[in-house]
Amino acid sequence: METLIQLAMETRTRPRVLLRLTPGIEAHTHTYDQTGQEDSKFGMGVRAGVAFEAVKMALASPQLKLAGFHSHIGSQIFEVAPFKAAVEVLTTFLDEVRSQTGYVASILDLGGGFGIAYNKTDQPVPLREIVSEIGRYTRERLSALQYPLPRLVLEPGRSIVGAAGTTLYTVGNIKTIPGIRTYLSVDGGMADNPRVALYQAVYEGVLANKMNEPLTEVVTVTGKCCESGDMLIWDLPIAPPEPGDILAVFGTGAYNYSMASNYNRLPRPAVVLVADGEAELIVERETYAQVVQNDLIPERLRIKMAEERIAK
Amino acid sequence: METLIQLAMETRTRPRVLLRLTPGIEAHTHTYDQTGQEDSKFGMGVRAGVAFEAVKMALASPQLKLAGFHSHIGSQIFEVAPFKAAVEVLTTFLDEVRSQTGYVASILDLGGGFGIAYNKTDQPVPLREIVSEIGRYTRERLSALQYPLPRLVLEPGRSIVGAAGTTLYTVGNIKTIPGIRTYLSVDGGMADNPRVALYQAVYEGVLANKMNEPLTEVVTVTGKCCESGDMLIWDLPIAPPEPGDILAVFGTGAYNYSMASNYNRLPRPAVVLVADGEAELIVERETYAQVVQNDLIPERLRIKMAEERIAK
Repeated sequence: METLIQLAMETRTRPRVLLRLTPGIEAHTHTYDQTGQEDSKFGMGVRAGVAFEAVKMALASPQLKLAGFHSHIGSQIFEVAPFKAAVEVLTTFLDEVRSQTGYVASILDLGGGFGIAYNKTDQPVPLREIVSEIGRYTRERLSALQYPLPRLVLEPGRSIVGAAGTTLYTVGNIKTIPGIRTYLSVDGGMADNPRVALYQAVYEGVLANKMNEPLTEVVTVTGKCCESGDMLIWDLPIAPPEPGDILAVFGTGAYNYSMASNYNRLPRPAVVLVADGEAELIVERETYAQVVQNDLIPERLRIKMAEERIAK
Repeated sequence: METLIQLAMETRTRPRVLLRLTPGIEAHTHTYDQTGQEDSKFGMGVRAGVAFEAVKMALASPQLKLAGFHSHIGSQIFEVAPFKAAVEVLTTFLDEVRSQTGYVASILDLGGGFGIAYNKTDQPVPLREIVSEIGRYTRERLSALQYPLPRLVLEPGRSIVGAAGTTLYTVGNIKTIPGIRTYLSVDGGMADNPRVALYQAVYEGVLANKMNEPLTEVVTVTGKCCESGDMLIWDLPIAPPEPGDILAVFGTGAYNYSMASNYNRLPRPAVVLVADGEAELIVERETYAQVVQNDLIPERLRIKMAEERIAK
């Protein structure tokens, strides 16, 4: 807050700010905790009183215009209950702030975290249902408090773009270890999709060029990076695979390209937008020249290298 | 193997090849398993007989010149014992191959995996000791088998460059949650060092500009990405920190820049070579323009955007 006020003074601006609150709700997929501790790198604790101090500081500063509040309680959330729990904490906080300072928020941003289906066991609540439930409950709470309805903001990032993405890999080597498993290697992996290694994410995939063939085989899909951990999908039922087949992996529209690396000096793949029967390139395939474009060899090492070459 | 033979035929070359073997030894830091199953995406199983079939195929092919064998048993290994166990399996295999085919390997590549100290509890075997022990044991084994000493190859990647690297971060916001912990945020994180999120790696760090001050505080160092998992160091004893301090994190020379991403659209940092009192730029800082250099907006969406702007 002090830094923000300082910056506003230096730039002679008066930014509108939302204060990020930590409501003490931590949601993960099918469960959520009321974390009394509010131990998070994000936001200001509502219960610890830190948030209320920040409100007073923002209201007292001529440099800031407090527009309202923001919270974000987790990712891949499959229930409405944790959002309602957050709304309860936040609306109580709004009411307390109003009664002690007279301040009425014009924006309430409840963040995102709406889960998508990466595989058959994921059962997300339909976005329409979750949004209408959150809206209904927030209105109900605010109405009970006779609090004017602020503009409600939600941030459904993954739930918009995640399911829209499909990654296409070309099948390379197929390695069968008799009696154990069949490894199907593809021309990508943790460099373009680190979510399996990072979060043990479970994806589904199909051979796009064999959609009408029965799934008679079971394979483990592995990436091309130099790590045992570079796995994409364990025990995937699949049509009989051959090198050159196209493996389509679903639900890769979020946290895949955005988290992609050049690990093992792999260039990042192209991204194609497919809509209404049209296909358009929206991210060009990275080139090897781009991968090394910022590498420099200091002059004195260049000379040494040249001398060594001559010495040979 | 078939693919390699095919490629050699197409390009009319006769490549020298090493066969990657899976000796059934899997080493991790202070332990190793004899994995009878040899369940790995890498290599050909020695015990399952797959490797021997591959040797016969390579020897029978006029397209390939078999130069020897390769294995790699793991990463961050802190003992000599698993390497000796691998040598035992591999030399037994060499002897069997010789007795059944007459083939004598000219190269034996034992891979890498020699651990480095990321923190005070890591106790790596000195490289000189581990290499001399591996060499001694391999010579002893081969001598007992009356097998001519092949060229021994080791691949000590991380143990050369890992400890040589230090990442410098600038301290940003410092957030103290009373009675719980102090979060020290820095201008980097999982985008430049994904090893903490990926492998729960434990790093050490110091405030480079306060090296003579006593470590009176304990902080948790957090990155700037939009994830609770973007943590760098938990519970680090440190000199009293202020925004603008320089946090130096050690042991970041391997699997950091090489695995770095542009997550949250963060440009990757510069890399500076410091040696013999000289400092030279070897990787230029990535620019925002480079981060978006491959992004394209399809023509029809450009038109729509322009129309929408006009409509407003």
